[in-house]
Amino acid sequence: MKILIINGPNLNLLGKRQTEIYGELSFDDYIKSLNKNNIQISVFQSNIEGEIINCLHENNADGIIINAGGYTHTSVAIRDAISSIETPVVEVHISNIASRESFRHESLISPVAVGCIFGFGMKGYELALDYFEKSKH
Amino acid sequence: MKILIINGPNLNLLGKRQTEIYGELSFDDYIKSLNKNNIQISVFQSNIEGEIINCLHENNADGIIINAGGYTHTSVAIRDAISSIETPVVEVHISNIASRESFRHESLISPVAVGCIFGFGMKGYELALDYFEKSKH
Amino acid sequence: MKILIINGPNLNLLGKRQTEIYGELSFDDYIKSLNKNNIQISVFQSNIEGEIINCLHENNADGIIINAGGYTHTSVAIRDAISSIETPVVEVHISNIASRESFRHESLISPVAVGCIFGFGMKGYELALDYFEKSKH
Amino acid sequence: MKILIINGPNLNLLGKRQTEIYGELSFDDYIKSLNKNNIQISVFQSNIEGEIINCLHENNADGIIINAGGYTHTSVAIRDAISSIETPVVEVHISNIASRESFRHESLISPVAVGCIFGFGMKGYELALDYFEKSKH
Amino acid sequence: MKILIINGPNLNLLGKRQTEIYGELSFDDYIKSLNKNNIQISVFQSNIEGEIINCLHENNADGIIINAGGYTHTSVAIRDAISSIETPVVEVHISNIASRESFRHESLISPVAVGCIFGFGMKGYELALDYFEKSKH
Amino acid sequence: MKILIINGPNLNLLGKRQTEIYGELSFDDYIKSLNKNNIQISVFQSNIEGEIINCLHENNADGIIINAGGYTHTSVAIRDAISSIETPVVEVHISNIASRESFRHESLISPVAVGCIFGFGMKGYELALDYFEKSKH
Amino acid sequence: MKILIINGPNLNLLGKRQTEIYGELSFDDYIKSLNKNNIQISVFQSNIEGEIINCLHENNADGIIINAGGYTHTSVAIRDAISSIETPVVEVHISNIASRESFRHESLISPVAVGCIFGFGMKGYELALDYFEKSKH
Amino acid sequence: MKILIINGPNLNLLGKRQTEIYGELSFDDYIKSLNKNNIQISVFQSNIEGEIINCLHENNADGIIINAGGYTHTSVAIRDAISSIETPVVEVHISNIASRESFRHESLISPVAVGCIFGFGMKGYELALDYFEKSKH
Amino acid sequence: MKILIINGPNLNLLGKRQTEIYGELSFDDYIKSLNKNNIQISVFQSNIEGEIINCLHENNADGIIINAGGYTHTSVAIRDAISSIETPVVEVHISNIASRESFRHESLISPVAVGCIFGFGMKGYELALDYFEKSKH
Amino acid sequence: MKILIINGPNLNLLGKRQTEIYGELSFDDYIKSLNKNNIQISVFQSNIEGEIINCLHENNADGIIINAGGYTHTSVAIRDAISSIETPVVEVHISNIASRESFRHESLISPVAVGCIFGFGMKGYELALDYFEKSKH
Amino acid sequence: MKILIINGPNLNLLGKRQTEIYGELSFDDYIKSLNKNNIQISVFQSNIEGEIINCLHENNADGIIINAGGYTHTSVAIRDAISSIETPVVEVHISNIASRESFRHESLISPVAVGCIFGFGMKGYELALDYFEKSKH
Amino acid sequence: MKILIINGPNLNLLGKRQTEIYGELSFDDYIKSLNKNNIQISVFQSNIEGEIINCLHENNADGIIINAGGYTHTSVAIRDAISSIETPVVEVHISNIASRESFRHESLISPVAVGCIFGFGMKGYELALDYFEKSKH
Repeated sequence: MKILIINGPNLNLLGKRQTEIYGELSFDDYIKSLNKNNIQISVFQSNIEGEIINCLHENNADGIIINAGGYTHTSVAIRDAISSIETPVVEVHISNIASRESFRHESLISPVAVGCIFGFGMKGYELALDYFEKSKH
Repeated sequence: MKILIINGPNLNLLGKRQTEIYGELSFDDYIKSLNKNNIQISVFQSNIEGEIINCLHENNADGIIINAGGYTHTSVAIRDAISSIETPVVEVHISNIASRESFRHESLISPVAVGCIFGFGMKGYELALDYFEKSKH
Repeated sequence: MKILIINGPNLNLLGKRQTEIYGELSFDDYIKSLNKNNIQISVFQSNIEGEIINCLHENNADGIIINAGGYTHTSVAIRDAISSIETPVVEVHISNIASRESFRHESLISPVAVGCIFGFGMKGYELALDYFEKSKH
Repeated sequence: MKILIINGPNLNLLGKRQTEIYGELSFDDYIKSLNKNNIQISVFQSNIEGEIINCLHENNADGIIINAGGYTHTSVAIRDAISSIETPVVEVHISNIASRESFRHESLISPVAVGCIFGFGMKGYELALDYFEKSKH
Repeated sequence: MKILIINGPNLNLLGKRQTEIYGELSFDDYIKSLNKNNIQISVFQSNIEGEIINCLHENNADGIIINAGGYTHTSVAIRDAISSIETPVVEVHISNIASRESFRHESLISPVAVGCIFGFGMKGYELALDYFEKSKH
Repeated sequence: MKILIINGPNLNLLGKRQTEIYGELSFDDYIKSLNKNNIQISVFQSNIEGEIINCLHENNADGIIINAGGYTHTSVAIRDAISSIETPVVEVHISNIASRESFRHESLISPVAVGCIFGFGMKGYELALDYFEKSKH
Repeated sequence: MKILIINGPNLNLLGKRQTEIYGELSFDDYIKSLNKNNIQISVFQSNIEGEIINCLHENNADGIIINAGGYTHTSVAIRDAISSIETPVVEVHISNIASRESFRHESLISPVAVGCIFGFGMKGYELALDYFEKSKH
Repeated sequence: MKILIINGPNLNLLGKRQTEIYGELSFDDYIKSLNKNNIQISVFQSNIEGEIINCLHENNADGIIINAGGYTHTSVAIRDAISSIETPVVEVHISNIASRESFRHESLISPVAVGCIFGFGMKGYELALDYFEKSKH
Repeated sequence: MKILIINGPNLNLLGKRQTEIYGELSFDDYIKSLNKNNIQISVFQSNIEGEIINCLHENNADGIIINAGGYTHTSVAIRDAISSIETPVVEVHISNIASRESFRHESLISPVAVGCIFGFGMKGYELALDYFEKSKH
Repeated sequence: MKILIINGPNLNLLGKRQTEIYGELSFDDYIKSLNKNNIQISVFQSNIEGEIINCLHENNADGIIINAGGYTHTSVAIRDAISSIETPVVEVHISNIASRESFRHESLISPVAVGCIFGFGMKGYELALDYFEKSKH
Repeated sequence: MKILIINGPNLNLLGKRQTEIYGELSFDDYIKSLNKNNIQISVFQSNIEGEIINCLHENNADGIIINAGGYTHTSVAIRDAISSIETPVVEVHISNIASRESFRHESLISPVAVGCIFGFGMKGYELALDYFEKSKH
Repeated sequence: MKILIINGPNLNLLGKRQTEIYGELSFDDYIKSLNKNNIQISVFQSNIEGEIINCLHENNADGIIINAGGYTHTSVAIRDAISSIETPVVEVHISNIASRESFRHESLISPVAVGCIFGFGMKGYELALDYFEKSKH
């Protein structure tokens, strides 16, 4: 089973800044720490909206986990890219976007995602992986 | 570990109606099928807003999973009840509320929940249980 | 033919208060005065939102007439209950809600009702019964 | 007893188009089929807003049933015409406007009508006639 | 000096209905009573939006006084007709539209009129005539 | 003089939780501490909207003090119950709702209350009792 | 007959600035030029909202003409002052406020004025004086 | 191939007014100048909303080009007429409505048209004819 | 204990106009009639927004009661003045602003006041004084 | 004559996905099939907003046809790029954006385009080319 | 070069209150500390909106720096005063209004100012002076 | 002292287009002309949102001046990048965004910037540099 994780803008800073919140693990090390040996996990990060779209188009995964960062609330183009592919997409946010500024309350991506996991910190990615594992059966 | 699942209005119909969507398992049987032997799961369902508030007040669980059904979008009172207790609460919805009518897009409960899991069908409850298990360590 | 009439909050006061408007007949006496002998009419009234939902779930009528009172404008939960059953539901309001305060102009129940009858006073219930009679043929 | 039925724009197509929905009866034939011999029913149809206003001004009926079609949502002028006459007016819509596009949810006519009957198909006209009959006594 | 007065929908009822408010003079008699002998006043009334547009196109007056009744708040087409001609247009309303329902507060016609006179009863027409007289010099 | 105090959802927690804010007195003990011997004070608390409506219907008090908690902002039904009775009702909130989340700024109850007392902590109830005492003369 | 004209903020600049638009007459000279010998006209101008309120309170005129300038759109206090006195008030604006910025479209004063005269330049004051003259008879 | 062009209010002025913009050709002469000999083009113009509806009902064309002028933004009735017929309808506007006043930005007709051509001046009609020609093959 | 009462615009009319509502006592006489001998009460009234700000800056009271009249809904400046001082401020309105025009529903002052007392007529000031007395202990 | 066609995000999928809708021609093959030998057509596609801006800056075409895909509704930056160049730009959308989700109804690009062609499928590009050809003369 | 600084409501408190934020320098001493000997700086402060308008009218400066405090967001009258004079006006705010309450986000003054300097503390005045110095050359 | 200036989309055109407004200096030449020898100024320009984010992440400046062009109003991602770094950021706009189209009035960047300088043309960059110089002491 192949899962692609797409991290959007500013998520390259995970493990480098605000380490008191997210810990000092890089995102790659975090993924390794999960010991999900039965899943082939690849990670793509970009701060450029169009590269995220390219990545969605070119993916050959069984499932995609996307945290589109700030593009979540503004990108019709990423939404359209998700709609145009057949791979199921799960949306993850590290923070609980419902308890932040009002412009973060609405996600343009949620309506075209299979499901949404918000607010569980780094554990959100793990839950999304669990979902794909459970769905395989 | 004790987990309380609170299901709001109309969720008593799970397994009785629309069985082509949700299957013919009753909610209790669904919970049993998860084989979560290491967790003590109790389930409370009510169609009455105030009884859900009572249940939140009186709980002695380590974690609560709530699917407040239609009260999700209208109940300041349930929101206040969640705020007034210390037990962590995870919000679950079976359907992807972001892809339904616009009055279902905003949840009054999300901002006071630890996190949100929307759109994964019955699997959403399982992911929420996973979260509490992972958090214990 | 079995018809269930569900009256929501404050409608227990019909015939007791504001009798200069609604007359001194109790709602039950009003129903009797219609002499609808060919229909088996039962009446349920509750001020509690969840009990109305319970009543909708448990009904075994051929048709339901609902006047949800103040819950008309706020209850996603009653709307969902109506959607979840197969019995056809007609919405009645005694007053013309379009000519009252703006928060009464929108009914959450109307979109899931078969049809709506507003503003005809107590006669609205009678017209709704007529509808079910005419539909039987 | 004289009742005037006013049908607004596009309602001249009843019985001519979409006959799978409304049947192949012309509106006049539909009215005849009701066998309301004790009521003198006249029918006026126009696609022109101002002619509907003229008709309202010149009526000498005991009651008016209006289905203003698309003008329902845009015509302050028809609303004012209804306000300026003393004949009671009942508003009818064949479809349930509350379950259609949002711009059809608000009727400018409802606040000045005696009452509203929406969503019962052609039977809505019959219920309106019933109302006037019941009111006569 | 030639002045054209255009009265929109329902204003044909002036002097016929609500005579306790507007008196029993017909509009024509009201105009005569002003004794404006130095002005050639013609009056056009129609309940049909498009006829008002025709009248605006075909006028050969030195000034137009328009009371567009209910079309005031809904007719982009009359607004466009006023914009397309060179004759100066003064907008009059008998009642003070700012103190009526909120949908009457905005006039689509005001922005393309020379000026507006609202709330002075029948005297508003007289003030508008005064304006054209004063402007001639 | 008989005064009924109605406390809505979550107000059963007064004196039990957040005692650093509200003190450790139960609400009943707080009332006793006021030494209002000349007034017969009864207290009703419920988390169930419909039971609050029932209580309003059945009251035989000279005045009612209501703190409807979270139902303040959502309950058309409680508002209607207050409108349907003749006992004067004073609205109290412990906190200053104007300085909290925006969805708490508007109270559906205020427009049908005699008056409003917000933000004075537990003293708000005392001021409301004072009001009824002063009004008696 | 005594008429008081109240000019609000920035209207002291009439005749001093933008003389290409308004001419070089001071407002006092403009009033003199009208030769309204049968009316006793007094003029009050202030840039201070509260002084306009004082002036309204203390007036002993038979009619007031107010051009509240920028306070038109923001002053609940001037509106209340007009409501609290019995002298009839006519609102005048030199420019056509409906064709300017959207925040100038709504006047807080219009709903409590007898009538409104907008867009006729300095002639608006003259029309307002005409109105009071015509009303005397 | 028969194409019907429907021009709405004020479009009778084409070639008569504002000739510096649209040229001095009448609309009929403009159509002739296109030399579309393989298409049978008929032109209908009316300032009356209802006559446009009548024309839509009665058409026997293979395609309709409509420029509804000011009715574009206000006429639910014309929209319904287009929905009720089977002839494909193309919407044309001479000006670019997106760069004009905000009330012109939304067209009620666009959602029920095959397609929209805005802002190309008189050439817009020609492009619409091209479309029907290209579609025939 | 020194209490300063600040009355805003139009409140100088208390006891002079609308005496059928407020009685014929001047505000000073009303204060005297309260016999609050243990409190040193001073009263300041101004119709000028900036003088109210000056008064707030210069006060040396133990508590302030403010009824800002029409400035309640428009004055960010008075709000800022209240925020900039340390004296606790209680907001009073004679009428129930929640049941008046919608532009009176929101107070800019409430969020920075200790608490609010609305709708109790002149008794509101007395309750505010009571509050300060009760708070002293 | 040189025409540049700019296709925005996800339009690289034309001819590759959803071929039942758009056919199996690549966009380049589609352009070739038009046999527009008298026009030198170049095509640029990018999923990256800033590259589209670069392309607009660097163009040396006589006309540009842009289909900005999802950036249509969100990109002030592309709008500004179009405003900053002198080449005329025509906006094309394959689907009728007015009949899709409401967030697609407004285009930030339309107000700065020469004209708009929406809803004609791939034929929209051809109509836009026709426009430039017709404009050359 | 003569520069006039106008400080609006509550800015008389600079250096007197909240000295931990703004320091203990009075505004005059702050200005002196800048040692802008080549500029003749005068300072005007008032809490009264109309006095600020008077000051704007009567100025004979080469440039004006205005910090209108709370009137920034509510005063159409000050905006109009700025529009009516020819002296260039720079708007300064000590705090970053974009990061405060939403009602402070829009300034009525900004659109008529030359430019805006927000959030730099007392240094904002100095930057504004720098601007005028740089502009002189 | 190292200052980084980031210019967003379309700002590469400075000095190349619209030279009658901005002059014929390239941005680099403009910076040189300031003779700010004591500051090490570097300039980054990109039309690609994500590259601006990369630049913000990788900067090692003492202060950043950003003019995000069209991304100002749409980029949550750039806002988040500014929040995630510790370098102070000053926002500059050449034009006065408050006097342009309404969609330019709100900046997503302002709330996370130290301060804002709008409308001073190219001088705005110079004022921002001045600010950093003044702040160093």
